[in-house]
This record gives sequence, C-alpha cells and structure tokens, in this order.
Amino acid sequence: MADFDFGNISIVLVNTSHPGNIGASARAMKNMGLSKLVLVRPKEFPSGVATGRAASAVDLLEQARVVDSLGEAIADCGLVIGASARSRRIPWPLLTPEQCARQALAEAAGNRVALVFGREDTGLSNEELQLCHYHVRIPANPGYSSLNLAAAVLVVCYELYKAAYLDEGDESATAERDWDQELATGEDVERFYEHLERVLVAVDFHDPKNPRHLMHRIRRLFGRIRIDVMEMNILRGMLTHIEKSLKGRDR
Amino acid sequence: MADFDFGNISIVLVNTSHPGNIGASARAMKNMGLSKLVLVRPKEFPSGVATGRAASAVDLLEQARVVDSLGEAIADCGLVIGASARSRRIPWPLLTPEQCARQALAEAAGNRVALVFGREDTGLSNEELQLCHYHVRIPANPGYSSLNLAAAVLVVCYELYKAAYLDEGDESATAERDWDQELATGEDVERFYEHLERVLVAVDFHDPKNPRHLMHRIRRLFGRIRIDVMEMNILRGMLTHIEKSLKGRDR
Repeated sequence: MADFDFGNISIVLVNTSHPGNIGASARAMKNMGLSKLVLVRPKEFPSGVATGRAASAVDLLEQARVVDSLGEAIADCGLVIGASARSRRIPWPLLTPEQCARQALAEAAGNRVALVFGREDTGLSNEELQLCHYHVRIPANPGYSSLNLAAAVLVVCYELYKAAYLDEGDESATAERDWDQELATGEDVERFYEHLERVLVAVDFHDPKNPRHLMHRIRRLFGRIRIDVMEMNILRGMLTHIEKSLKGRDR
Repeated sequence: MADFDFGNISIVLVNTSHPGNIGASARAMKNMGLSKLVLVRPKEFPSGVATGRAASAVDLLEQARVVDSLGEAIADCGLVIGASARSRRIPWPLLTPEQCARQALAEAAGNRVALVFGREDTGLSNEELQLCHYHVRIPANPGYSSLNLAAAVLVVCYELYKAAYLDEGDESATAERDWDQELATGEDVERFYEHLERVLVAVDFHDPKNPRHLMHRIRRLFGRIRIDVMEMNILRGMLTHIEKSLKGRDR
C-alpha cells in the first residue's frame, strides 16, 4: 500500500460547538494526509478561531462541505464508521482505531468512506450511531476516557496514516536504520579493546593479573552500541592522545 | 503487562508559548493514564486558558512541576526521549512512537523516564536534543508534518497506553528490560561528560574554542549505551586514573 489515495475518505463532524475544534481537526487531518472535511450543522462556521487553530490546514476549511444532516453527509458512502465513547444499550460491531483504519482503507479502494465524530459533550445520538456500519472506540483510561474532539480525529487519522504508509516491517525496524556512517568492523572494535586495555594498564587502572572482569564489563558496555567508523576514530584518537601525554610524563 | 504503573514516566514540555497547549496536553495525558507533567519555563502558567482546555485533567496542572531548565527536569531520569520533527545535521537514534512506548515501558520498571516536547514553533534546540538518549518522530504527511504540541503529546501517550494495556505477545521486548543494574541518572551522566571533557582538554585532544562537534558526537555515542551504575563507576574510575597519571607527568 505504498501510494494510497485518501480522496475517498471523509471526516464528518456532527454539530460541533467549538469552532476551535473544527480548526484543530482540520490540522490533524492534514498532518495525516487526509483532506475531505464535512461539517453537519456546525454551531459557528466559518470562524476566525477555526482558521487560527487550523494553522496551515486552512485549505481544508475552505473546501469543507457544510450540510444539514448526517444522512446528507453520508448519502454517497459505502462505509460509515462512527466514533463512540460509551457503550450503548444497543451493541454494535465495535472496531479499534487500527481495525477502523484497515477497514476504511480496504473499502476506500472502491467506495466512499465516512468517519463520523459527534458533539463535544454528548457525542453521536443513538439514531446517528445506528446510521453507522461500525463503531470505533479509542482505547483510553477508564477513569477519564473522554478525548477532545480533535484529539479523537487525530488518533483515527494517525492509525489510517500508519496503515496506509507504514508496513508491518517498520515496527521492528531498529533505531539505527538510517545511520549516517558506516559501522566499524569487528576487527576495528577488537583493536580498540586492545588499545584501551594498554592505556588502562598504563594508568594503573587495570591489572591483567587481577582483572576482576574489567575487560568483560567494558566489552559489554561498548558492545551494546554499534560504533560507527567516525566514532571509532574519535575513541582511538583519544587513547593515542592519552598515551602521548603519559609519555610526556616520563621524559 | 496488565497492571502497569506510569508513575515513573513524565511528560516534559519545554518553553511552551500557549497555555492552551499545556491544558490540552494534560487532558491527553490523563486520557491515556499518565499523570506526571513537568513544565520547563512555560511562558504563561498557571493560566485560565490552560485550565479550560485541561477539562477534567486540572489535577495534572495543579500537580505539575515547574522548573528552570531541561537539565533540571531530567536530572533523575535514566531514559530521556525527545520529540523531533525535523532531521538534524547530527543524526540520532530515532524511534517510532511504538518503539518509544516499548522502550519507555521496559525501562520505567526500574528507572524514571522523561518524554520531552519542545516549543510550538521551533521544537527542541540542538542542545536540548543532545540531552536525549533517543528521539521520537511521529509519522506524518511529509507535506505538512508539524503537529500541534498537544497532538504530539497525545500520539506518544496513546502508543504508551496501547503498549501497556493492549499489546499482545510482544516478541520484540527490549534487551534493557532484564538488566541487572540500575541505570545511571541523567545527572551522573552529565558529570561524566564534564569529567571526560576535562581529560580530553588535558591531553590536547579537545579544544573547547574549536570543538568541531566532538562533545556532541561523544554524547551521541554514550547516549546509545544507557550506562548502568557500575559501568559509570568504571568510566569515572578510568578518568580519575588517567588524571592522576598525567599529574605524575608534571611532577
């Protein structure tokens, strides 16, 4: 899924009270590569507050579609997923944000998809939730699970972005993957240990007759990182300078 | 990891301009079960705007620790991960939010962990980024990758929550989890860098007037190791012996 088109996926905000949340939702959407925003009867829109919070996502606000009902917003959609914070009396198929992302991506290839978010205080009504094929719930602290509206939009869009652009292999990628320098070879590293040991003997820190695991501990320490070529030059340079200075002592 | 304690994990916000972002970050933290907020020189705090945006997370604002420098904020921390939006001249070990979560959880069992977020406009300075063992970058639309501060906090906390409470069989558990020694604190490590720098100046390897990134590179190198307490004693012992031997030279 290297080059996914989010053009078939809309974010629908129902009856939003605070225009700041509309702007922040637009920013979150654009951060994650989405662009289609639909507003169902927003309390205040357009709004300078929304524009301010949208930052560089003002284009999404300008192109937002404003409609009168959720039914109108989702009329052309083949898949509708609604955000639900609470468990409802009528159980409904419930997705995690990752499952929501996979489902939306799979269906967006051939259908329009709507991801629907309700009011700041009361969410989506039971009637509105019943217009959705699935519900999505964001995992959260049971003691305080009420996310800000734009925060909920962000989590859902972030999972969409991850599902579309990051393959599973990325999860186990090591941090060092994009390192800028070649790594030192095993031989280089061995020569460094020998050099370090000579210096430690010279400064009476290490007695090879009574080693007390010192060099093992040092190997364990430096072995945990993969030293690159430039770093190896720095470490060897340090040791050489220490040796030179010690020789100065004996003159 | 059914019953994880986030008490060892702090969110550190550096030099935040807009109090609304402090409040929204507190809400995002509490939504995801975190409670420890540290503010480094916030522009405006306490603030009614912060309180308003915190909603039911006002308790986090009331208990927030306000400090004068990032160094002070992370002095007692064994692991420091900083949010980085851009690629830097000196690359640093870079984590995804999931990797960040796994690393933080693994180490929080025995150490304090700081997750650090910079200014709204310019993020963390290069100096601040170099105080971090790892950087974390949130995957985002390359055309508009600048997340709102509280949005970035939310994504990192959401991945923490998922890793702590939802991860099924984590095969990529990090090596540090079963480490036999406590990690050196940030303060210990800072004193080690100062000591090493003095020695490198004494042996004419380092000229603070013409530093050529030497200390940055050394921080990047040792920052990857996550030095434990016994290793720190060894390293400091080496430096002390080198200094003593050099003094012998001048006699």
